[in-house]
Amino acid sequence: MTRTISLLGATGSIGASTLDLIRHNRADWQVEALTANCSASALAQLAREFDARIAVVGDESCLPELRAALEGTDIEAAGGSAALCEAAARPVDMTVAAIVGCAGLAPTMAAVEAGGTIALANKEALVSAGDILKSAIERAGASLLPTDSEHNAIFQCLAGNKVREVRRIILTASGGPFRTLSADQLKSVTREQALKHPNWDMGAKITIDSATMMNKGLEFIEAHHLFPVGLENIDILVHPQSIIHSMVEYRDRSVLAQLGPSDMRVPIASCLAYPERMETPLTPLDLAMIGELTFEAPNEELFPATRIAREAIEAGGAAPAVLNAANEIAVEAFLNERIGFTRITAVAESVLARYMPSQPATMEDVLAIDAEARDHARAVLEIPTLV
Amino acid sequence: MTRTISLLGATGSIGASTLDLIRHNRADWQVEALTANCSASALAQLAREFDARIAVVGDESCLPELRAALEGTDIEAAGGSAALCEAAARPVDMTVAAIVGCAGLAPTMAAVEAGGTIALANKEALVSAGDILKSAIERAGASLLPTDSEHNAIFQCLAGNKVREVRRIILTASGGPFRTLSADQLKSVTREQALKHPNWDMGAKITIDSATMMNKGLEFIEAHHLFPVGLENIDILVHPQSIIHSMVEYRDRSVLAQLGPSDMRVPIASCLAYPERMETPLTPLDLAMIGELTFEAPNEELFPATRIAREAIEAGGAAPAVLNAANEIAVEAFLNERIGFTRITAVAESVLARYMPSQPATMEDVLAIDAEARDHARAVLEIPTLV
Repeated sequence: MTRTISLLGATGSIGASTLDLIRHNRADWQVEALTANCSASALAQLAREFDARIAVVGDESCLPELRAALEGTDIEAAGGSAALCEAAARPVDMTVAAIVGCAGLAPTMAAVEAGGTIALANKEALVSAGDILKSAIERAGASLLPTDSEHNAIFQCLAGNKVREVRRIILTASGGPFRTLSADQLKSVTREQALKHPNWDMGAKITIDSATMMNKGLEFIEAHHLFPVGLENIDILVHPQSIIHSMVEYRDRSVLAQLGPSDMRVPIASCLAYPERMETPLTPLDLAMIGELTFEAPNEELFPATRIAREAIEAGGAAPAVLNAANEIAVEAFLNERIGFTRITAVAESVLARYMPSQPATMEDVLAIDAEARDHARAVLEIPTLV
Repeated sequence: MTRTISLLGATGSIGASTLDLIRHNRADWQVEALTANCSASALAQLAREFDARIAVVGDESCLPELRAALEGTDIEAAGGSAALCEAAARPVDMTVAAIVGCAGLAPTMAAVEAGGTIALANKEALVSAGDILKSAIERAGASLLPTDSEHNAIFQCLAGNKVREVRRIILTASGGPFRTLSADQLKSVTREQALKHPNWDMGAKITIDSATMMNKGLEFIEAHHLFPVGLENIDILVHPQSIIHSMVEYRDRSVLAQLGPSDMRVPIASCLAYPERMETPLTPLDLAMIGELTFEAPNEELFPATRIAREAIEAGGAAPAVLNAANEIAVEAFLNERIGFTRITAVAESVLARYMPSQPATMEDVLAIDAEARDHARAVLEIPTLV
């Protein structure tokens, strides 16, 4: 049975993984919309390969290039943020929401309001706009499938069980490449060192977030929105091999864990085929070859990001949106070699202490808070004693 | 809501664990029948504590002692194998079938034929009489919940999923205490050394089976009957810490694992509360404290038991019943210091090569095969060059 699918963010890494799975199972899928920010020629090539109905660039200035690249096909081309939301609102069986950053908020919301099933890979939608998104899902009768490997793992460990029987969610973290450094060594970590993640091949921003553990902090906030077990019942456990992607402990002390290769095609396949399963072209996990899995408690003295994120979601309201925006600016400053590694989280915490807007009620509110938090972060970056 | 429960094998270790859980959740359970082989006074004490309706000893010669110990109560007392089966057939919400050995076959079958839910902890029912038991379950519309920690783990990892989506079942094995010994060292293993299991506190027979890996071989056969994924899709993985109790890999390469403390109260609680969960009085798993989980491929050169078991279930028919009976006699001979450690599996394999009765059709057939296989094993033990 063919199902229809739209892919918001087709040219990024989640997009590539999703399309690779569709490529291996072509008969099962009819691609409706593919979107990108501005990679017009890559987008056009994918739209041709997958015979999409429409291709959309978020940046309208890239539309002429897209049109040219699609000439001679009957694939529609469109551009701009309104077009993005219109494409996202087309009725499909499945939407993969994989636009990075706040640019993804409005199209994700449009897909939710259309009431379908959303495989959510956009962190900001839950971190910055968790309550708004959840209300919209409820109103529209949409379904959310978490695509992040950790949240997808938790979702799988909950299958056939009830959230009220959960004693504890155990969010695993690689601990990043600097897990074993001293406080002094951490200060002199370079951009190049931070860009090498031991287990996952990801974009620069999320790789730095992994190194600071802010990625786990943001995932903690996401987990709280997805799985209502109470903040005090979500633990973080460092597991450097990233083979166990997360766990759920039930009140009988039984723990279920999801394991797998460090490849996003596994959680994406779980979303695409849910509640069934589908083939993936991956080498199966070989634990005898891997040999050992290790675990340790997180060190929040050296890596305060998870503490900061926990405090932000405890504070609630706009705090997680502020944290997310401030962190983005701080990571950018680190990548531009303006600040040292340990200053990334210091900047985020400093912005959280200075800017506490009221609870956002709409996606527009979230975008305004996001923009203002970025300004605050830029201002903090100008204060030499703070960074 | 109070549920009724009968416990076949109340004075053994599974019985004690089950009753401890009921003790912590007394308001939820009304105990119908408690049975034992001959421990009349222990049985009477439990029957009094849990206010059972009937207490039954399998060995009729122990009935007078039971009657005396229950004097002054309105708890019925009965004895003998017919009484055991009658008690097992009383309608209850849940029967825990935990009688050790072939003595458990008839009462387990009686409970199955009554059509209730059976938490099955009796290995022989599946190993020696798997096909007969499964037909009876289907006929009676009974439900089977696996109580062995490994099979319960697999059952939990299958929740919300379909067996046809399974790529592989990964049965974990501690590898026993002699995992790291050489072939020569294995030959001189003593009874005392073999009786020390690193992770589980169990009876003597099953502790020796753990050391030879025959326990895993028998579990392999059980897994085959419980989870029809094909023999070639059941793998054994050595995991010395026994924290992961087994795993299921799906065709998308996602692996679900069940972990927990090495305490039978966890899988028993999972059966008692199924499909809900219940509280257990156990210390939760602390992976940061445990530190590491290791894995290695099984060594079937040194520990041929899993190979022998695989060959027995591949041969089908009566072979698993013969293996089980021969192994029991061989373990007994080892415990009596008549044969060396490495001869246990050699005796079992030798009996399998000599005695191949036709497929049993009834529990009586199984019992006859069991008795005859024991005679063959005793005969093999008399051949000095073979043992």
